[in-house]
Amino acid sequence: MLVHKQDPLSPWKSLMEQKLKQLKEILFQVYDLNAVQQLLNWDQQTYMPLGGAEERGEQLATLAQLAHERFTSPEVGELLEDLQVFVDQLPPDSDEACLLRVTRRLYGKQTRVPASYVAEFAQVTTLAQTAWEQAKANDDFEYFRPHLEKIVEMRQQYAEFFAPYEHIYDPLLDDFEPGLKTAEVQQIFGTLKSEQVALIRTIASRQQVDDSFLHQPFDEKAQWDFGVEVITRFGYDWRRGRQDRSVHPFSTSFGLGDVRITTRFDPDRLATALFGTMHECGHALYDQGISPALRRTPLAAGASMAIHESQSRFWENLVGRSRAFWTFFYPRLKETFPKQLGNVSMEAFYRAINKVQPSLIRTEADEATYNLHIMLRLELEIALMEGSLKVHELPEIWNCKMQEYLGIAPKSNQEGVLQDIHWAFGGMGYFPTYALGNLVSAQIWEAIMKDIPDLENQIERGEFSGLLSWLREKIHRHGMKFPPQELVEKVTGSTITPQPYLRYLKRKFGDIYNI
Amino acid sequence: MLVHKQDPLSPWKSLMEQKLKQLKEILFQVYDLNAVQQLLNWDQQTYMPLGGAEERGEQLATLAQLAHERFTSPEVGELLEDLQVFVDQLPPDSDEACLLRVTRRLYGKQTRVPASYVAEFAQVTTLAQTAWEQAKANDDFEYFRPHLEKIVEMRQQYAEFFAPYEHIYDPLLDDFEPGLKTAEVQQIFGTLKSEQVALIRTIASRQQVDDSFLHQPFDEKAQWDFGVEVITRFGYDWRRGRQDRSVHPFSTSFGLGDVRITTRFDPDRLATALFGTMHECGHALYDQGISPALRRTPLAAGASMAIHESQSRFWENLVGRSRAFWTFFYPRLKETFPKQLGNVSMEAFYRAINKVQPSLIRTEADEATYNLHIMLRLELEIALMEGSLKVHELPEIWNCKMQEYLGIAPKSNQEGVLQDIHWAFGGMGYFPTYALGNLVSAQIWEAIMKDIPDLENQIERGEFSGLLSWLREKIHRHGMKFPPQELVEKVTGSTITPQPYLRYLKRKFGDIYNI
Repeated sequence: MLVHKQDPLSPWKSLMEQKLKQLKEILFQVYDLNAVQQLLNWDQQTYMPLGGAEERGEQLATLAQLAHERFTSPEVGELLEDLQVFVDQLPPDSDEACLLRVTRRLYGKQTRVPASYVAEFAQVTTLAQTAWEQAKANDDFEYFRPHLEKIVEMRQQYAEFFAPYEHIYDPLLDDFEPGLKTAEVQQIFGTLKSEQVALIRTIASRQQVDDSFLHQPFDEKAQWDFGVEVITRFGYDWRRGRQDRSVHPFSTSFGLGDVRITTRFDPDRLATALFGTMHECGHALYDQGISPALRRTPLAAGASMAIHESQSRFWENLVGRSRAFWTFFYPRLKETFPKQLGNVSMEAFYRAINKVQPSLIRTEADEATYNLHIMLRLELEIALMEGSLKVHELPEIWNCKMQEYLGIAPKSNQEGVLQDIHWAFGGMGYFPTYALGNLVSAQIWEAIMKDIPDLENQIERGEFSGLLSWLREKIHRHGMKFPPQELVEKVTGSTITPQPYLRYLKRKFGDIYNI
Repeated sequence: MLVHKQDPLSPWKSLMEQKLKQLKEILFQVYDLNAVQQLLNWDQQTYMPLGGAEERGEQLATLAQLAHERFTSPEVGELLEDLQVFVDQLPPDSDEACLLRVTRRLYGKQTRVPASYVAEFAQVTTLAQTAWEQAKANDDFEYFRPHLEKIVEMRQQYAEFFAPYEHIYDPLLDDFEPGLKTAEVQQIFGTLKSEQVALIRTIASRQQVDDSFLHQPFDEKAQWDFGVEVITRFGYDWRRGRQDRSVHPFSTSFGLGDVRITTRFDPDRLATALFGTMHECGHALYDQGISPALRRTPLAAGASMAIHESQSRFWENLVGRSRAFWTFFYPRLKETFPKQLGNVSMEAFYRAINKVQPSLIRTEADEATYNLHIMLRLELEIALMEGSLKVHELPEIWNCKMQEYLGIAPKSNQEGVLQDIHWAFGGMGYFPTYALGNLVSAQIWEAIMKDIPDLENQIERGEFSGLLSWLREKIHRHGMKFPPQELVEKVTGSTITPQPYLRYLKRKFGDIYNI
């Protein structure tokens, strides 16, 4: 007969495990309610008939309210309190310790926000999205204005739940980029702005590249098929995903087994769907790569929006706009569009898809000017939140700033202030993460090159599994376990910094524009 | 200055109205949670990638559990109790009185079922639906068997929550057909069976009609477009709906503003999509016609499944397989398919789409044999519930009964026991409502003919607005306000009875087969 030596801590441990299980049961339900909201959103943007908008708003409001009530219930607070000592016993990087830390942070935030606010905000932003779609289609800012006014007012109200704050924009930013402050972003953007503007000026003084062949009719079905071939090679798992069309392309996930992307087609502009598809696939690869051990918990998500964006921009730009990538894919693209590209050399194509030219639409901006679109939005968002700018003044000031930053101004609000959906879903604080994502993508590139010096040769052969494995191992599988700055430092040796991105831009465009 | 005469009941009344408002707030949330489940289901059957099945099951379980908890909470019980005296003060047919009556009935039922059962059943049936799809595709009953065994066991368990009962099948039937008993159905089916079998025998002795031209390749896009033209004329509101493809066609609603249908195509069989589309449109017209005053309450649904089915069968058969209908539409169909139908006269076409011939697939059965498919299923369901039949015995007994009832037996389970999705979603008790719906559709036809003697002329001109208005006024707008038998009696002067349907069959097929 064996004699078990009893661990004196074991009854306590098993109590703690029991409590952790209880907590997880609630987190599972909250996760489900949030996942379902994503599905309702996906449906709204892909297939929902117009008549469904009002009830969709009510449904989203009900789900948001129930998720919020469930998550902020005193039971969760007590369990977190009881489990606090347990966290110290766990390996700090273990799934459980991270789950408890992250849940505690989210609980601390969400308990400051009343359920009634959550329900109202869900409904207001659902209606606003339908209004935005109509307003954009009809180039009618006035139709969208009252919705946006309400949203700005509610976002200001939201910030007040977190008073005192350093800056009224901080609580919004924190939702997308945990821990980051407005002042830090402004500092990073400061460096970036002067250097990027200088680079753009230099480029403007050089001979422009010709990209006219990218602007001619391209069959939509052929575009779709080519995009599918590319992302299938990237490693997008179609068993756990699908692609549809929507006005504004996006990636969304209803769990680790269902991560979808959407795209849109411009029949006269090859780049729109091509790079849009790679971009959304980059997001989706992240979500598909999260460890199954984290499923149905708050950790089953990206570390932050900037980290998420680093993945989409990585595949879209660092990979998708590289010479190595097109060494493999250009012959295939030429086969697909022999009439349009038969006489275009690979080098001419490479330069065309990397043409730097100030333009109106953010999602279609080149890598050198993209961040300026973001800076413009950040300044407007901050002014709206501070109250120094009114919604009705937006179209005019948008156009002024476009002139100031990029030297061009939109002729319609469709191409101006109405171009993006973000404000319609209340996503103030979201835009800066796009620029930060660019920076991180270049930091990651430099880190990978040390581990896989052969990477460009692999890409030239159409092999992406080494790259994807590296990203899965270093970033994807961890989900939201680590704060973004900590994760970036772990992976690249530094917190978010503009230097690698500036080095990347100068090297790439120095070559293309003979600087 | 005016002096108001105070109603002595007014403080009490306003208290009651306050309580009614409180109750409605909860019912709204429950409605939303149920509507969202419908959307998740729609998505699962139209677009969801396979990898999403497991999480979809969890999501549906969470929603079902929350809806059940919310609806069966003591708060609802108390409000219903408090409001009971108020019901007597209200006009008995008022929306409020009906709402309180129906809610009370549902509350009485649902409080007998534990939330844990509801969650488990939602998850079990979600997984079973995916398994059924695969099993059907691969003609592999064994793959589906364990799922169905679990479902039968859970349905038996469900019936026990309602013990004592006259028959174990009663509680299941009641979910689809409030108030109806198994014995009543068996009695109605008794009359029907002997008369329908006699009719089929007589028909079999006559010369068979030729429908070979319906079985040739028909372009799918042209089929889709023709179906769309038909249901647009019927009055389907596309602003509040859409059509997609699915393995098993269905109609579903996520609110009064979003009522969708699905269809499927058989490239070599014109009737599949054509009549399937009209059928689902019939369901959808019902849901689109419910009074907006009932929105987001339990009354915003059909009176019962039989009444719902009476609408789908009405448009599919009484309208869609009539001479009057094809007088208008046949020239159009010929234009659409000149190669296939150029030499086919309208009379030959009319007889072909009404050909009576025992066949394997219920959804494609003709009007004379359809009900026998239902009787077979009813007998199997009752035997499964009673425990006298085991799931593993199903394929064999299915085939035996097909032989006995219809004189033919399927060569595969795909065309046999696996053909329908209903058991996979746990819908035992659902099938009989299809046959009852047939009966009611003929009762309604006789009633309309009294009010609109001109109806066939209208249909010949492709005019359906008079018909739709009548159905809206008499049936659709009331939603679930009245018990099904009461509603049928109100509209047709009699509760559900087989005579009008038998008259209809004899008149129609007597003409076609010269009996």
